[in-house]
Amino acid sequence: MLNYRKDLEKMPSYDGVEKNYRIKVNANESTMNLPPLVAERVQNRLSYVAFNRYPNEEYYSLVEQIAKNFSVEQEQILLGGGSSEIIEKIFHAFGGVGKKIVYPQPSFSMYKIYAKAAEAEGISFDLDEKFDLNVEKFIKKVRETQANLAVVCNPNNPTGNVLTLEQVEEIAKSVDCAFLLDEAYIEFYGKTAVGLVKKYPNLIVARTFSKAYGLAGARVGYMIANSEVAKMIGKTFMPYHLNSLSLATADIVYQMRDEFIPRIQMIISERKRIFERLKKFPKLEVFPSQTNFILIRHERADELNKFLESLDIGVRFFSPTAPGLKNCLRISFGTRPENDEVFDAIKNWLEK
Amino acid sequence: MLNYRKDLEKMPSYDGVEKNYRIKVNANESTMNLPPLVAERVQNRLSYVAFNRYPNEEYYSLVEQIAKNFSVEQEQILLGGGSSEIIEKIFHAFGGVGKKIVYPQPSFSMYKIYAKAAEAEGISFDLDEKFDLNVEKFIKKVRETQANLAVVCNPNNPTGNVLTLEQVEEIAKSVDCAFLLDEAYIEFYGKTAVGLVKKYPNLIVARTFSKAYGLAGARVGYMIANSEVAKMIGKTFMPYHLNSLSLATADIVYQMRDEFIPRIQMIISERKRIFERLKKFPKLEVFPSQTNFILIRHERADELNKFLESLDIGVRFFSPTAPGLKNCLRISFGTRPENDEVFDAIKNWLEK
Repeated sequence: MLNYRKDLEKMPSYDGVEKNYRIKVNANESTMNLPPLVAERVQNRLSYVAFNRYPNEEYYSLVEQIAKNFSVEQEQILLGGGSSEIIEKIFHAFGGVGKKIVYPQPSFSMYKIYAKAAEAEGISFDLDEKFDLNVEKFIKKVRETQANLAVVCNPNNPTGNVLTLEQVEEIAKSVDCAFLLDEAYIEFYGKTAVGLVKKYPNLIVARTFSKAYGLAGARVGYMIANSEVAKMIGKTFMPYHLNSLSLATADIVYQMRDEFIPRIQMIISERKRIFERLKKFPKLEVFPSQTNFILIRHERADELNKFLESLDIGVRFFSPTAPGLKNCLRISFGTRPENDEVFDAIKNWLEK
Repeated sequence: MLNYRKDLEKMPSYDGVEKNYRIKVNANESTMNLPPLVAERVQNRLSYVAFNRYPNEEYYSLVEQIAKNFSVEQEQILLGGGSSEIIEKIFHAFGGVGKKIVYPQPSFSMYKIYAKAAEAEGISFDLDEKFDLNVEKFIKKVRETQANLAVVCNPNNPTGNVLTLEQVEEIAKSVDCAFLLDEAYIEFYGKTAVGLVKKYPNLIVARTFSKAYGLAGARVGYMIANSEVAKMIGKTFMPYHLNSLSLATADIVYQMRDEFIPRIQMIISERKRIFERLKKFPKLEVFPSQTNFILIRHERADELNKFLESLDIGVRFFSPTAPGLKNCLRISFGTRPENDEVFDAIKNWLEK
């Protein structure tokens, strides 16, 4: 009877509680809650949040810190509910009927959904067999399709590989449209392109507190762009889209971000350690990663996944229909004992 | 150079820190932070939030409570970032190019913006000189314009007046399209239409934690509708649009909602008391209210507003161009001493 927005019926529905595994390494979250010192200051800060008042200064206090850290103007920064909301709104701003958005495949699976939600045409660009992005061909695709927005995830999720800063610059320089660089995992790689924003006004860098800063539950992300671009994208956000509790939390976490360096370094060293150990198995394909997770391929990945589930270990198993990801599993890194347990389980299964 | 979504340029921008008045009664917030008992349990709950994990059970735990309270199915409920996000998404679901959305005027000023954001045609329906909504004419307008969505705010913001449940039912029964009833202030009136949802599958009731439950900072609201309708509107929300901290907070607040009854009763009795006192001034027009605020009109409202500002009292002054609200001020109710101080200031100014 009711008349919904065109194509709304075709959008997927999201619901259902996710399973809580004993070792949950399926969502690239930090497996550790906040460092104790940070947790204490966050709790203290939350105890004097004005729950009754609409969010106000909390937003600008965090923007100020981020601007200072990157030596950019505050007007260049927008905050959102995780980089999810940032990406959603950028897709919306450059989307609409007849507009084209080009993104790599395999990459963050939500790009396709965000393109749909923005009523744009999502165009996937295939990574090569090693999951590398051929920059020249990518630029060509963006130009040929007359895309309105080009998207790259660097490092790439779920493959873990990276573009160099030179490659990022090459894209920014060569495409005429907006260029969104999703740096959700950048802290595990270290080579942010934020410094290029000044030179390339079409470049928009999206960042998140969800991964390296372990704040997936708070839903806070940000973007850095040319101030005119930020102003236009800002129009897609409704007032009070962020809440005081998350903003106050992210504000403390950002103040104390040095406390997260040991964890980031630990993940990087664990990544090296586990990569070396995994690649010794001839039947297992292991992809080099610059993130907090690793992608592996095995011809009986579904069985391996079931075996891990039987041990209450949750990894990310990709649907056999996910383009390019057949027989792939993605495993986030946790603490050393967690990683050891996951590794031993895989080893036992492989040697069975 | 960049090619933005059609008409994005025309969307307003939101920024700037709001002034913190000594007595801030301009945003219909609760002037009191959480009741001490509630605050204590909220703080305790927040201390064991998994900040590092994506929100998960927190959503369903709150949905379960709300469903139980209203004796509806969990599938009939969606949570959003305040009723703001709920309304934004409902406008989106029934919006789109060429779609019409009818809402009263004067009413919540964001309806116009949400209609624009949804790329729909917003059609305002004028309230009468007493700010009452002529139900027959409203239905006629909705039918004649072949609107896709009819919206009513009950009690109405910023005028404070109400429709009876019979009037709400008359609209639900008589319009063919979706009918959004925005009950942001319903706790101060008491006559919710949630019970009508079963009978009228086009009726969607939006509620919020921001007003009576004093959680404006946490951004949590919900809607109750027919489960099929909720399923379709649910498709407009992206995964993880709500955060664990706000959900956990609202969950505790909803568990302890009886703790808010004395405050709601206090606001209702303060409303009566101040209304009686204000209406004694012949030059001041005072509109009866069933909310936590009151609307007054005076031919020199801008001067009165400035006078109140000089005392560091912030009330809501409407732009002279706001349709129907010329010379109007909206004042939220706070504690008895706050209300007395605001009243005395108005009295002093009037008697000057």
